[in-house]
Amino acid sequence: MSVNYDALLLDLSGVLYDGNFAIAGASNIIAEARRRNLVIRFVTNTATKSTATITADLQRMKFDVRPDELFTAPMAASIYLRHKQLRPYLLVHAAIRQEFADLDQYNPNCVVLGDARDDLNYSNLNTAFQLCKSGAPLIGIGMNKYFMDDHGLMLDAGGFIRAIEWAADIEAIIMGKPSATFFEQVVASTGVAAGRCLMVGDDVVADVAGAVSAGLQGCLVKTGKFLPGDETKLPPSAQLIDSIRKLF
Amino acid sequence: MSVNYDALLLDLSGVLYDGNFAIAGASNIIAEARRRNLVIRFVTNTATKSTATITADLQRMKFDVRPDELFTAPMAASIYLRHKQLRPYLLVHAAIRQEFADLDQYNPNCVVLGDARDDLNYSNLNTAFQLCKSGAPLIGIGMNKYFMDDHGLMLDAGGFIRAIEWAADIEAIIMGKPSATFFEQVVASTGVAAGRCLMVGDDVVADVAGAVSAGLQGCLVKTGKFLPGDETKLPPSAQLIDSIRKLF
Repeated sequence: MSVNYDALLLDLSGVLYDGNFAIAGASNIIAEARRRNLVIRFVTNTATKSTATITADLQRMKFDVRPDELFTAPMAASIYLRHKQLRPYLLVHAAIRQEFADLDQYNPNCVVLGDARDDLNYSNLNTAFQLCKSGAPLIGIGMNKYFMDDHGLMLDAGGFIRAIEWAADIEAIIMGKPSATFFEQVVASTGVAAGRCLMVGDDVVADVAGAVSAGLQGCLVKTGKFLPGDETKLPPSAQLIDSIRKLF
Repeated sequence: MSVNYDALLLDLSGVLYDGNFAIAGASNIIAEARRRNLVIRFVTNTATKSTATITADLQRMKFDVRPDELFTAPMAASIYLRHKQLRPYLLVHAAIRQEFADLDQYNPNCVVLGDARDDLNYSNLNTAFQLCKSGAPLIGIGMNKYFMDDHGLMLDAGGFIRAIEWAADIEAIIMGKPSATFFEQVVASTGVAAGRCLMVGDDVVADVAGAVSAGLQGCLVKTGKFLPGDETKLPPSAQLIDSIRKLF
């Protein structure tokens, strides 16, 4: 069966794998997409793993992923800074610092704030606040409230971004799904029109509604973080499938 | 001249003193208030000085202040916790911990968050978040964006309170001006009806508008942080005087 899109944008966790295990049939779908000559992008908000680690993890699970097909929120931030010729004060996880290694960081004129865990201390947050209060834009990597790890629910970057926004009377620029700016960047990297891109995800808001709002096609899978009832939040135009293996 | 109130509520910094120096005539006004048998309360949001230090500082500047006339935001928080039988997880400045020393802090069922400076680190904020996400109320001491010190503008507690509120989907209970709950507590401590209390302050929003909203009388002084134009934000019923020395 032919499809009405030319680029396939795939969320990672919950779509291609759950925990450390590939979802059944997922790697075959990627092989089939290649046979159909679809442009492929692996799209994630992850801000605590380097692109090398993400790629290696996917390859270990036998996914045919090529490094230049990966599109992450930290990469989007790095592209944005280069485009705007900004010098970042980085308040991000050590694992993604290399993403910004080729940018001038002396005398910073913007703040990049992500899930930096213990680096989110008073002194660093105050430096970020002082820069923003003096007019430096705040670029947030992801706008999530919390994530789950072995210690239970953990504060994600979103709250800290909110804190600086409120204290400095500014509005942050958010990199990562569901930001329209972010989807525009992913689409631009494909060379395909937004309307001919399909975003597949397990998060009805961040992945699917976000993509549709940005002019892409959307598809929700019932794996990963999908919860019964999520389908009621689907934009009318979006697809719903049991799993990525039912894509074609 | 007689006055139409029975209790006089005085903000400290900017009303009685500026920096380390008493404002001219301020201590005479307190003496005159005592001659008139007015109930007096010294009302401050300060969350980084103990009541003993605040009292000593005022006495050093020759103010006749009695310890039981002091009413601070940390004291209000402590009274609130006792009233609600709550066990706090304290994320506050070391200088005010003694305010909560007689409360059970084992197995906490609420969070008290104030201007704790370097104790506002990821680990402590995450503990606060986890408690709040599990249903513990968040009691904020002051809701200020920033304060000024030798290092310039510094993040105050407000942003961190916002962060936890947003991430845990809750609304904090704020202790300190301009919270109506706080003014109610000050009024209750005087034994005088709200309408017979006059709040005098240099902050048109936190001191004067807050007091008037809570049913008190309000008076703005043109000392301290007063800026030309503030008088346009005064509630119609409030007074405006050049300085505390013009009160009577």
